[in-house]
Order: sequence, then C-alpha cells, then structure tokens
Amino acid sequence: MPIRTVVWGENIHEHTNEVVRGIYPEGMHTTIANALNADPEIEATTATLQEPEHGLSAERLAATDVLTWWGHKDHGSVSDAVVERVAERVWEGMGLLVLHSAHFSKIFKRLMGTPCALKWREAGERERIWTVNPGHPIAAGIGEHFELENEEMYGEFFSVPEPLETVFISWFQGGEVFRSGMTWRRGAGNIFYFRPGHETYPTYHQDTVQKVLVNAVKWAYNPHANFRQVTEAPNVPVEKALEPITERGPKLHKAGEAGYR
Amino acid sequence: MPIRTVVWGENIHEHTNEVVRGIYPEGMHTTIANALNADPEIEATTATLQEPEHGLSAERLAATDVLTWWGHKDHGSVSDAVVERVAERVWEGMGLLVLHSAHFSKIFKRLMGTPCALKWREAGERERIWTVNPGHPIAAGIGEHFELENEEMYGEFFSVPEPLETVFISWFQGGEVFRSGMTWRRGAGNIFYFRPGHETYPTYHQDTVQKVLVNAVKWAYNPHANFRQVTEAPNVPVEKALEPITERGPKLHKAGEAGYR
Amino acid sequence: MPIRTVVWGENIHEHTNEVVRGIYPEGMHTTIANALNADPEIEATTATLQEPEHGLSAERLAATDVLTWWGHKDHGSVSDAVVERVAERVWEGMGLLVLHSAHFSKIFKRLMGTPCALKWREAGERERIWTVNPGHPIAAGIGEHFELENEEMYGEFFSVPEPLETVFISWFQGGEVFRSGMTWRRGAGNIFYFRPGHETYPTYHQDTVQKVLVNAVKWAYNPHANFRQVTEAPNVPVEKALEPITERGPKLHKAGEAGYR
Amino acid sequence: MPIRTVVWGENIHEHTNEVVRGIYPEGMHTTIANALNADPEIEATTATLQEPEHGLSAERLAATDVLTWWGHKDHGSVSDAVVERVAERVWEGMGLLVLHSAHFSKIFKRLMGTPCALKWREAGERERIWTVNPGHPIAAGIGEHFELENEEMYGEFFSVPEPLETVFISWFQGGEVFRSGMTWRRGAGNIFYFRPGHETYPTYHQDTVQKVLVNAVKWAYNPHANFRQVTEAPNVPVEKALEPITERGPKLHKAGEAGYR
Repeated sequence: MPIRTVVWGENIHEHTNEVVRGIYPEGMHTTIANALNADPEIEATTATLQEPEHGLSAERLAATDVLTWWGHKDHGSVSDAVVERVAERVWEGMGLLVLHSAHFSKIFKRLMGTPCALKWREAGERERIWTVNPGHPIAAGIGEHFELENEEMYGEFFSVPEPLETVFISWFQGGEVFRSGMTWRRGAGNIFYFRPGHETYPTYHQDTVQKVLVNAVKWAYNPHANFRQVTEAPNVPVEKALEPITERGPKLHKAGEAGYR
Repeated sequence: MPIRTVVWGENIHEHTNEVVRGIYPEGMHTTIANALNADPEIEATTATLQEPEHGLSAERLAATDVLTWWGHKDHGSVSDAVVERVAERVWEGMGLLVLHSAHFSKIFKRLMGTPCALKWREAGERERIWTVNPGHPIAAGIGEHFELENEEMYGEFFSVPEPLETVFISWFQGGEVFRSGMTWRRGAGNIFYFRPGHETYPTYHQDTVQKVLVNAVKWAYNPHANFRQVTEAPNVPVEKALEPITERGPKLHKAGEAGYR
Repeated sequence: MPIRTVVWGENIHEHTNEVVRGIYPEGMHTTIANALNADPEIEATTATLQEPEHGLSAERLAATDVLTWWGHKDHGSVSDAVVERVAERVWEGMGLLVLHSAHFSKIFKRLMGTPCALKWREAGERERIWTVNPGHPIAAGIGEHFELENEEMYGEFFSVPEPLETVFISWFQGGEVFRSGMTWRRGAGNIFYFRPGHETYPTYHQDTVQKVLVNAVKWAYNPHANFRQVTEAPNVPVEKALEPITERGPKLHKAGEAGYR
Repeated sequence: MPIRTVVWGENIHEHTNEVVRGIYPEGMHTTIANALNADPEIEATTATLQEPEHGLSAERLAATDVLTWWGHKDHGSVSDAVVERVAERVWEGMGLLVLHSAHFSKIFKRLMGTPCALKWREAGERERIWTVNPGHPIAAGIGEHFELENEEMYGEFFSVPEPLETVFISWFQGGEVFRSGMTWRRGAGNIFYFRPGHETYPTYHQDTVQKVLVNAVKWAYNPHANFRQVTEAPNVPVEKALEPITERGPKLHKAGEAGYR
C-alpha cells in the first residue's frame, strides 16, 4: 500500500497575488502533490484552509500516514480544534512535514513548545543548502549542496528545540545561515522542518527540492502509526503488578480510581 | 547575587489530606524551599495556586531565575494566561524544574508539545534511582544509585520528547522502569523533570532528593536570562544586509512591513 | 535486492562449553543468521573469528549492507587491521548491530570513543525490557515490554556516549537498570547496541529478540552506503569557490597542496 | 580554587614561519593562556609538543581541570601513550577544548570515533559566526553573530558524530557553511570543538574569540572530575545483589571471576 499523504495548503496567495498565481496556477499544494505522486510509493491528495474542517476531518486524518503543511498569511484562521486533532494524530505516529513559512503555523508551535521565530528578508537572494548529515535518509541522493537562485532569507536564531538531527544548513548571499532541515519526534510521530518555499519563487518546481520532499515523506512514514496509548495514563493495580508486591504505606487514591489530570 | 528561586506548590493535599498534612505541615513548597535555602548560592521563596495570579505576577517572574513546579490534583485551575507568561519567561532563559505529578501540569505539556502521559501505581513500593550520566552537573555527588523505600510507581512509555540528556533512570519493585531525570532546553531556558515526590511519602525530606534539587537549580540557572528576541521575527531590510546584495525578483511584502504570524 | 547482512560470531564458547554447545549446536551466528533469513528482505550469511581475515575481507565488506557482531572471550584476537576496515565501512554507511558482550569489542570501542564499561552478574535472573520509544522502527511490533526469564545482568553506568535515541531500557530482578537498546550514527553508518544475548541462555531463540534483530537490520540499512568522502579532506581552490572571492592575507599552503593530517 | 587549565600548543609554525611568528611571537599557546588568565576564575599554564611527554605527564593531567588543544602540522608526532592518557582523563571528567586544525588531532579522532574530515580553503576570506543556541553557557555575551575578516574556510560535511548541542554555525564568503561550535560528552568529560584559529591570522587576539574560549573553559569544567569507574567493569556477586535473588541456570564464570575484555 502506498504512503497515504495529504498535502495541506493555505491556498490564499495563489488567489490574491498575480506573481504567485503565475508560478502555481493550480496552487502550491497541487504542485507539491504532483511531485510526490511521481513516486510510486506515495499516494498524495490535497487539502486546503477553505474546505470544511480545512479538509482534515477525523476520518481523513485517521487514514493519513504523512501530512505536509504550508501556510503563511493566515495561520490564525486555522481552527484550534483541527490543530489539536492533527497534534494527536502526530503523537499516534502520523508523519508531519512543515514547510517554509509554516514555521509560524499553530500546529508547528504546538508540537515544538517554542515560539519558532526567526529573521527574514525578501530580496530574491541566492540560497545554498548544504548537507550536514549525508547518511540521513532525507539526504539520500541530494549531494553535498544545492542552490536556489532566488529565495527569501531566513536567519538564526530559529527558536525551536534542539533537533534530533540536523540534516541541512543554508548559506545566504546576504550573510546569514539557517538550520534548514531538522528532525524531531513527538510521541510516535516523525516531524521534519524544511525551510525553502517562498511563494513568489518557483522553489517547489525544482527537482532537488522535490526529491527532498519525497525522501522526507518516506522517512516520516511510520507503518505502525496507531499508538493511542501515547495519551493514556493507566493505573496499574497492585494485584496486576508484573512482580509480586504488597501494598504499603498511606494512599491518596482508592483502588482502580483514575488519576488527576 | 544568589539564584532567585520560586518554589511553586499546588498546596491542596496539605489542607485536605491528613497524611500529607502530617508529612508536610507547612506545605511541600515550604519543605522544598527550606532545602534550597540551606545552600548559600540559592535564595528560595514560595508561591501557591491560591495566591493572586498564583503568586506569579509578571514582575515576580521577571525577577525569578529558576522556578520549581509541583502540582497534582488541580492542574486545570492554573490560569492559561499565567501558563503562557511562565512559558515566555522560560524561553527568555528562566530555569524550570518540573516535579513528579507536574508531568501533567499545563506548563510542562505546553513546553514539551506532547501528552506527557505515563503508567502509575500507588503501592508504597521501593524505587531505586540509577545515575546514567555521572558527569552531568545534576548528578554531582549523588553516587551510582539511591533508594526511596516508599514511592508511587511511574512507568514507561513516558510520552515526552527525546531529552537533551537522560540523567537518572528508576527501577521499581513491581517490575517497571522510568526515565526519572531528563533535561531539555526551550528557547534559552533549561528544563529538568525529576520524578520522585508523591505527596503521601516523605520524599522531599530525603537528603539525596534535596541534593538533586539543589544541583538542578544551579544547573538550570542562566545568568543571562533576558533573551527577548526568542519570540521576535524581525525583518532585515535589504539595505541593512550584512553582505551587499541587490534586491531581485518578485516580492510579497513592502519594505519594512511586518511578516505574517 | 535483499539487505546483504553478515552475522559475525566469535565462535569459541560453542566449541569449549557444553552448555553453550547444547543451546547453539551450530553456533550462535547460525541461529542469528537463520532468524534474519526468515525475513524475505534480508539475506544473511555468517563469518567467524577463525576464518582468514575473520571472514571480513575488503571485498566482502564492500558487498555488505549490515554487519552484526557478537564476541566475548577473545576480543583481543580480532586483528586491528580488520577493525579499522570495518570502521571505515561503517563511516561509508554500512549498518552495525553490536550484541551483548560485544560492548567490549574493539570495533564498538573504536566507534564510540569511550570505554563502554558496565556492571555485570551471571545469575540467570529475570530481565524485563521496556520500550521507551514506541515510534522507533526498531520497536515496531515489540509491545510495551517483553521478558527474558534467565539472563545475565548488565548495570549502569554504561560508559557510552549519549545516544541519538534510547529505544529500550531493562529492569533486572536483582535491582539494576540498563539502557538496553541505543542508536548512534558514525559518519553515514547507523549503529545499534542491543543488550541481551548471554551465551548460556537461549536468548537468540526467543521470538521477540529475533524480531528486534530483524527490525534493527532494516533500520540500520542505508541503500546509499558509499560515502567515501567521509574520510577525505579536500582543498577547495580559490578559483573554484562557489562564490567569487579574491585571495587575501598571508598563506601557509601553496595552491593545490594537500593539508596536514 | 581557580579552574586549572593547560593550553597545549604544537608550537611549530611559530618557529618556522615568519608570518605566524609575527602574529604570535610567544607562541599561540601563550596568547591563548594570557587570554584565559585575564579571567580570575581561570589559572592557565602551557604545554607544548616539544616538552617531555609533550608536557602532559600523568601527574600534571591529574591536576588539570580543562585542557585546550591546538595542533596542525605534526599530529602524527604526538605519542599514542599520551593520547590514551588524555582520553582516560577526559573520561574521568577533565574538560577538553579542541581548536581549529586540531579537528585532525589524534585525541579528537580518538574520542569521536570518526574521521573528523572537512573541506578547506586558505584564502583569507570573511567568516561570520552565528549563535544558534543563545542560552548555552558558551554563547553568554557573544551576541547574535561576530565576524573574522580573514580566516581559513572549513566546509561541510564535517564527519563528526551528531553533537549534544550545536552552539555556533559559520558563514563563509566563498559560499560554505560549517558547524563551528559543537559540544559532546565522553564518559564524564565535556568536549567543545571551536573552529576559528588559522595560524596566519590574528584570530586568537580577537576579543570575542577570547570570550568564547573563557566561556568554554568554564562550561567544560567539572568540579567532580574523578570518575575512575568509567573504565571499570565490576562483577556484582549474587550475594551482594541489591534485591535478594537466587542463582539460577548455567554459568560461564566462577564466582568473583573477572570478565573477559
């Protein structure tokens, strides 16, 4: 069975800005989904902010292996209930790819527990992305570096938690650096942040960028993504202890009582 | 100047449960604060749920280097505004010690981005805590292991992010293990979770436990805890780029405009 | 193409100790290889200390995707040249599974840079292995814990570097804990240490242990394991710089000269 | 008592190259030691390759809290016995600062377990070092970035293990990036690699570089650096088990026998 991937797009600039519409006439989400679908192991569909429940019903998420997220202009319009639903699905094991300006998305900030802030400059400058972890599956076949002739600059300090691994670091023409590819796990879910993708440049049409996305979907995919117990706090009764023990001392809870939350 | 430490206590069981009152007649927070104040480098005061703003006004937090947090029965009563205020102060560099049942506190879940769930059993069984990182400052002088004759059991899987470092692992008489001492950094703030401390046992009167707390306050202390920029996302105008660059290509933002959040 | 796996065995106790011979009449390496070969994605062969070059010629290693290593009695007899050859192949991307008493093997100590010491007791006591990272591929299908009724005890402090991730932690009947499953990457090579496997107990016949080994081979496998450049330190001449720069200031090296090593 | 620091210098270029002698007439080690001694908490002395035992006798190392290491031209002349002695002292808890071209020193490769290779170019180009971990003690007071107008370029992939934390990342004028400040722990010893310091430029006279070194010595210092047990593998006899157990099953070792190494 292929990796069931949902490509989520905010889908605003494509309708309000001529430059963006010119580059992504069907929407950035469609371009990304097409790139993923070119790989036989991936089956990608799209969802957008404007759909009911932003296209992310509980049923659809339950049948999603990997979710990719691009947003920029209107993070605030994403419903808190949907954000919480996505977070729970990530904890269960759904993979999540967070793209470019989605560093400020509700879901990314929710899962990181930090502001996820950074410096930025929109000057169409050159970005050169260096692989600092060539053995990582996301870097497979990427080479030691690749370039994007026109991109927005993102600069450090990027206020995210120290990652599990750093895969890519960007060099910018104007003098900054940025940790452009980082991984985390939250519950059983794999998370990858990938920096490139400003909407006024054709970044998601670029071959190497598409290859990174394909690699990242495969890396983030967890075929056993059903860890419901990640959110459960079960009491283990004394008589079911794995080693025989005798209850001792004073107690706060009665036998079988649920804990406080 | 000593390390300005605030010991936060939920302060409920001490008033509603005779066992707890008997062990901690002045409240757990007072016992912990006394233990910390025995070290000349620390100056500890207390704050409780019942005080206005739970004793954590913006002014007080701004003058706090390290905050310790114990709660159990009524996590839900902690105001969301105070939780957010504490989170921001942690990102700026305030240290945070999260104690025992505070694994389910709003502030810990907020900073971890995960459910922070675990197994539990209240049977007064033996806990033996092993040092798995003897060179870590929090383990200084602790020895290879120490015991708590009566403690509540907490068992894995503990759904927190992979820590920066694991310092302690617990063995329980009933057959479980638990990562009992773990560190993370969020923004510029150091965070330490320490497992022991069930309210019906005299854990915080124990010498070794007190030594761990003293070590942890010193480790978490950041003398430069004023990183306001952790939450800022400044635009760097083209003409102020560190290397001379010329603007190219299409733009979404006008010069000097604030980014979307 | 299946994952080309070589199961290396010291192959001494099986010939000198009746108990071990009784449990593993064809050698532990054969038992492990058979378990791996039961998975259609893996093609496992064996190699032993007694073969020329310990069965690990340069040609064979070049055609090996994952190597598993069990040794105990005679680590010192492994040739330093073969150890260095294996290390180089790991840096290029070959996976390595280090089993039980191989914590003291030359190759593991070489790749860790630490003593890899631990406590031990041979008393046939109960070991219960807890999954502390349920989303990790090595833990797929393992469940929250499993038991080995008779095993040797290994206790902390285990002097290895902080791992990339901790997957399993053991509880021992006699009161110790141990980080029993840990991952590292060295160069492009994935490394997994797995604790169980004392030769006087039938551990490698156990289903769950075999499943962990199969999972670990699949996790360690890097289909692009040819990162020769991991050991190279190339000079980048000024005229080949990616951005045009002009040479300035005094120099130590002449153009094109090799660096010092 | 101040932090007893030994600044080790290869001390060759200062005698054979006029440029280097002009910048560091008393040797790079003396310049670094003077910078450290300007801080009242540090007491720095020097040692060089040419001294007996390279100035690193067992007695002196036993009385050393932090060692800094700069070498370039003649790594091979460092005695293997001294390297092993330094490694053991690091495992016990001595801090180690590895500077610039010492990435290829025997001691650094020994402790990392990897080739520690990188790209390089000697063109006097501009290096801009960015802080990517502002709350880390080594970054205290350093600011968000600082510049070295003339430095040697080091480029990725730098084949070291994924660090505990990345503190600094360099931008180079010629288009490369490099992880310039990284931390690891080996045994109980803290290790920091800091990239700048090519001998033909006055890098170690620079204020910010000196501040980083002072911060790093303080961070690496472990007041309890006597963890001899890091290299020991003690047998725990059955009758001394922490929990009462009865010996079961077959055994390989007799009671009290030392394990194999």
